Amino acid sequence: MINTLCVIGVGLIGGSLARALRAGGHVRRIVGCGRGAKNLELALAMGVIDEVCTDPAQAVVGADMVVIAVTLGTTADILAQIAATLAPHAVVTDVGSAKACVLDAARATLGAALPRFVAGHPIAGAEKSGVEASSAALFKQHLVILTPQENQSAEALAQVQAMWTATGAQVLSMTPGLHDQVLAATSHLPHLLAYAMVNCLLDLPTPVNVFDYAAGGFRDFTRIASSSPAMWRDIALGNAPAIIDMCERFEAGLATLREALIRADGAALEHAFQRAKQARDDYLLRSAPP
Amino acid sequence: MINTLCVIGVGLIGGSLARALRAGGHVRRIVGCGRGAKNLELALAMGVIDEVCTDPAQAVVGADMVVIAVTLGTTADILAQIAATLAPHAVVTDVGSAKACVLDAARATLGAALPRFVAGHPIAGAEKSGVEASSAALFKQHLVILTPQENQSAEALAQVQAMWTATGAQVLSMTPGLHDQVLAATSHLPHLLAYAMVNCLLDLPTPVNVFDYAAGGFRDFTRIASSSPAMWRDIALGNAPAIIDMCERFEAGLATLREALIRADGAALEHAFQRAKQARDDYLLRSAPP
Repeated sequence: MINTLCVIGVGLIGGSLARALRAGGHVRRIVGCGRGAKNLELALAMGVIDEVCTDPAQAVVGADMVVIAVTLGTTADILAQIAATLAPHAVVTDVGSAKACVLDAARATLGAALPRFVAGHPIAGAEKSGVEASSAALFKQHLVILTPQENQSAEALAQVQAMWTATGAQVLSMTPGLHDQVLAATSHLPHLLAYAMVNCLLDLPTPVNVFDYAAGGFRDFTRIASSSPAMWRDIALGNAPAIIDMCERFEAGLATLREALIRADGAALEHAFQRAKQARDDYLLRSAPP
Repeated sequence: MINTLCVIGVGLIGGSLARALRAGGHVRRIVGCGRGAKNLELALAMGVIDEVCTDPAQAVVGADMVVIAVTLGTTADILAQIAATLAPHAVVTDVGSAKACVLDAARATLGAALPRFVAGHPIAGAEKSGVEASSAALFKQHLVILTPQENQSAEALAQVQAMWTATGAQVLSMTPGLHDQVLAATSHLPHLLAYAMVNCLLDLPTPVNVFDYAAGGFRDFTRIASSSPAMWRDIALGNAPAIIDMCERFEAGLATLREALIRADGAALEHAFQRAKQARDDYLLRSAPP
């Protein structure tokens, strides 16, 4: 049971966490903090939070658990603002899609509170955003990855694990470096490719609007290109080294396919396509609900 | 009304066309032809076709309309086999995903029957294949693109247009070159990227199976990587020039994003992401059912 929870950034993720904990009876009081007064008023009216406070330094006073659920580019600034007013026993966590950059910011700002900061990342989300898109069920059967630091307080880690487990999520731990590599591969590079694909079509010199001829495959392939540009700018910048590495690997792989096309090497193309299809079909089987 | 329809290749597309025409009362007799005896027997048992014939040259005898719905790599061979036994009034069409290569094959094989060949492409399909996946409704509200030749018989063109319109499809015409460019952009390159993305993950040296951490975005992004490898080998080879051109355009666009990442140019990244999101959101609005 969390006595006072402070959620900084009451959007899709922060709002859904508050609702999930409330629905399960795992929290007594929720303070919501953010820059958008309209969104906070909506969250209050929806019963997602109990109190509104627009100043992060004030919002965390007396909180037992502080969840930072703002865009990645704002996290360092929030950490700096709350460091001095955190209660000595307060646990702080975040939900950012890149973890090495968040831990760098925590080390630079939190001082004595650093061991009680637990970097985390719920693998859930949608193209939608804002508290109006939040849901108490968002994290059910989804992964939450925690990336403990070297001097991590075991008690703080256990409290954050318990909080996410209470939402129905499956919680696991890995190093920040591995997290950032895995997410660059499964999420960040695919977003970059989808954005690049749509822009590539926009730049075509064809005399027709090629989008008019797109079918279901294109729609699914580019779904993630409808994600928030500002959020993805922050993620791209926050995880740049791992994304650049993945990008180079991908470009090499695509060039191999293009070269097979140029020399009309049907066997090489079919082998590459078959290998990918098999891997994806295996992945779908493994990830299917039991 | 088609008196005798001959469908060569009774799979998802050929089977769905037969079922749609049958359901609407637009055909009297359907002869199914193919290499897989088991699939043809199933099509017969399902009532999709009335007769089975495994020899294309024999199957087209007496047919008023011949639809070639085999994989792209087999089309030239089928055209060569049927040229001598087509009835003088027979209309021939195909469903291949690339059109310049099919018209090259038609010119090389059909002789006097050439003006009555109408190259066509229904923009419908799925990762599934075979007659068991066919549906009378597959083409409803989908596009069918016809790419008339220079010496096209106007009567043959009208008959193929009428056939597809009868399935509920929206039929339009463009040049083979424009078709191949548009499809390379909206379908063929996205398939190549999805296959390359999955293989890129398989080749990562991470100590974990990265697929285990993939979320819904990745699943949608790679859905088309579950498509038939042999079919997509044929499409890639059949439309190689346009796909190679698209691939080079895409690689240049992706390199621009990677370079923005390297110099941590948040404004350039956000602008590119915003432009793509706007274009995709516009496309969804335009393509939404009325």
